[in-house]
Amino acid sequence: MKQLLLMLLLAPCLLFAQGQANYVCPPCGPCDTLVFHQPGKCPHCGMKLIKKDKLEKRMKICFLLYEGIEILDFAGPLEVFTDAGFDVFTVAKSNKPLVAQGVLKVVPDYSLADAPPADILAVFGGNAGPTAQDPEVMAWIKSRDKNTERYFSVCTGAFILGNAGLLENQTVTTYHDQIETLRKHLPNAKVLENVRYVDNGRIITTAGISAGIDGALHLVAKLKGEEEALRVARVMEYDKYVPNQGLVIKK
Amino acid sequence: MKQLLLMLLLAPCLLFAQGQANYVCPPCGPCDTLVFHQPGKCPHCGMKLIKKDKLEKRMKICFLLYEGIEILDFAGPLEVFTDAGFDVFTVAKSNKPLVAQGVLKVVPDYSLADAPPADILAVFGGNAGPTAQDPEVMAWIKSRDKNTERYFSVCTGAFILGNAGLLENQTVTTYHDQIETLRKHLPNAKVLENVRYVDNGRIITTAGISAGIDGALHLVAKLKGEEEALRVARVMEYDKYVPNQGLVIKK
Repeated sequence: MKQLLLMLLLAPCLLFAQGQANYVCPPCGPCDTLVFHQPGKCPHCGMKLIKKDKLEKRMKICFLLYEGIEILDFAGPLEVFTDAGFDVFTVAKSNKPLVAQGVLKVVPDYSLADAPPADILAVFGGNAGPTAQDPEVMAWIKSRDKNTERYFSVCTGAFILGNAGLLENQTVTTYHDQIETLRKHLPNAKVLENVRYVDNGRIITTAGISAGIDGALHLVAKLKGEEEALRVARVMEYDKYVPNQGLVIKK
Repeated sequence: MKQLLLMLLLAPCLLFAQGQANYVCPPCGPCDTLVFHQPGKCPHCGMKLIKKDKLEKRMKICFLLYEGIEILDFAGPLEVFTDAGFDVFTVAKSNKPLVAQGVLKVVPDYSLADAPPADILAVFGGNAGPTAQDPEVMAWIKSRDKNTERYFSVCTGAFILGNAGLLENQTVTTYHDQIETLRKHLPNAKVLENVRYVDNGRIITTAGISAGIDGALHLVAKLKGEEEALRVARVMEYDKYVPNQGLVIKK
């Protein structure tokens, strides 16, 4: 009887606590552990608060592959995102085997036609031209845009995002010998050289090949906190990871 | 008539120069550009001179893959060796598709039964246990030993080389959380921690996952010269490459 009375007395408090204290700011550093009762902006970093359950969901990342893709461009981020507990799947125009960089035979999980939704679309360089100029791939990217929270490109993967119309008025980077070409190709984008990655908030582009590892660790830090990125770097024995090595335009 | 006379006079000199000046020392630094007329030892570094044509042949590297292999373990070196112009092919117990790290479907080029010879055998970690304990794989490695010039392991790939009897009295390394296990497993090997790679001359073992990139660049420097390793690092935008970062026991 006493226990029942105690439960009845505590019920409103528990309901209040459970119902209200479920807003957090996206991981950014010292305010990652704070929980708020109402939506709004974080009083510490100014970021828009999000529902806690959204933060904890397992992010799905779609890796768009193609014939001639550079191995480390996609394999570096694939290692990082897998170690960080994201759900990653691979997609290509068809689900037939393709050869990465002329040496590694890979079978995509899905074709464009049957690929499930994803929170993040990741694209890569190597032989990006034919994909960037493929109307079917461009239409596919655009058709998924409303459900895609973020974009991530490595190397000349920036040309794929650019041709899909995603880099207008963005600050971006690409492979070092393609900087000028991308500048001419995207006159409304600000193309930077000598930067490991550039984060515009929704769109992250990285420099070439190995820079994808650093860009991916930055994305892990952004979505799960710097501690998690450092943990993943330790798992990978990547003691060369330098937090905040790229340019963040918008968190 | 004058030209014919000149050719006849110069012929013995040309024949001497072409026939004799074809010994070089393996790439190691300042004496890489010297050419010698006779076999022997390099008077600068003491290394045994080799025939110039042997140096220039395209090295073949066999990547031994298996179910559950860690992605960056093999993909990092695969990028490095491909960029450096080596011929790389993949082999697994069968040539059916396998899944690397639970996420990437890869089709090996060959099975153990039909794999061509290679100058270098490279093995990797992730889920190395079943391969290291597989009598068929161990017998295959041993059967090719007399034609294998060098071995290269990343991460827990050291257990595969160890079980094949290749690490006896060698100084080696492995993934950071497997150092003690490897010490117990190979009492006749000296297992070092906190080292990016260890080169015993014929056998190179590297630390975990991302360390394979540095070990592979070291092998490129060893076989093709430091300038070539620096060129490959620039291609990969891997400005985090530090020459001579590992331990070289024997060149």
